[in-house]
Amino acid sequence: MRTAPNIARVFNALGDPTRRAIVERVSQGPVSVSELAKPFKITLAAVVQHSQVLEAGGLVRTRKTGRVRTCSLQAKGFDLATAWMMDRKSLWNRRLDRLGALLDEEA
Amino acid sequence: MRTAPNIARVFNALGDPTRRAIVERVSQGPVSVSELAKPFKITLAAVVQHSQVLEAGGLVRTRKTGRVRTCSLQAKGFDLATAWMMDRKSLWNRRLDRLGALLDEEA
Repeated sequence: MRTAPNIARVFNALGDPTRRAIVERVSQGPVSVSELAKPFKITLAAVVQHSQVLEAGGLVRTRKTGRVRTCSLQAKGFDLATAWMMDRKSLWNRRLDRLGALLDEEA
Repeated sequence: MRTAPNIARVFNALGDPTRRAIVERVSQGPVSVSELAKPFKITLAAVVQHSQVLEAGGLVRTRKTGRVRTCSLQAKGFDLATAWMMDRKSLWNRRLDRLGALLDEEA
């Protein structure tokens, strides 16, 4: 079952420190899941689970070639989260602008 | 005790659906904590707790005037998270560029 990344899945994925560390490692280049497990001192099963959560959030993509599963970065989740944050900030700034205009009118 | 926002605090704050909903509401304009509690059908104490987590993540700011605590948006957390995501993506893209250059050399 494939699940489409959405805001909830992206931020759920990024809310965990080990998963953010995985994203930092993967952003330096594709890496096998077993290589990923080493610095984190967690089991391979735990890394696989984390990578699935990151994949559901559209932040990484994994591909199996023979017996090796490789993890690489995916843009989708980053774009979703960045857009969500930009939207919130711009709504807020527009509101401040309107408030400023109202104050100017009254001045 | 005031805690400086950092990446861990921002993503921890945004990892929760109620807190994201609070950010969406606050991005439309400042709102009192008791107003915030209404649509979420949660206690005032729970909203206060959520707003403290959001404040630690630099996403909102609260100010008490008399007996009313008002919640407004803060840019800091958004900027931190956006910068972190941009950095990850640009590291990845630079790596892809280098890989492309290597392939061109070998062609």
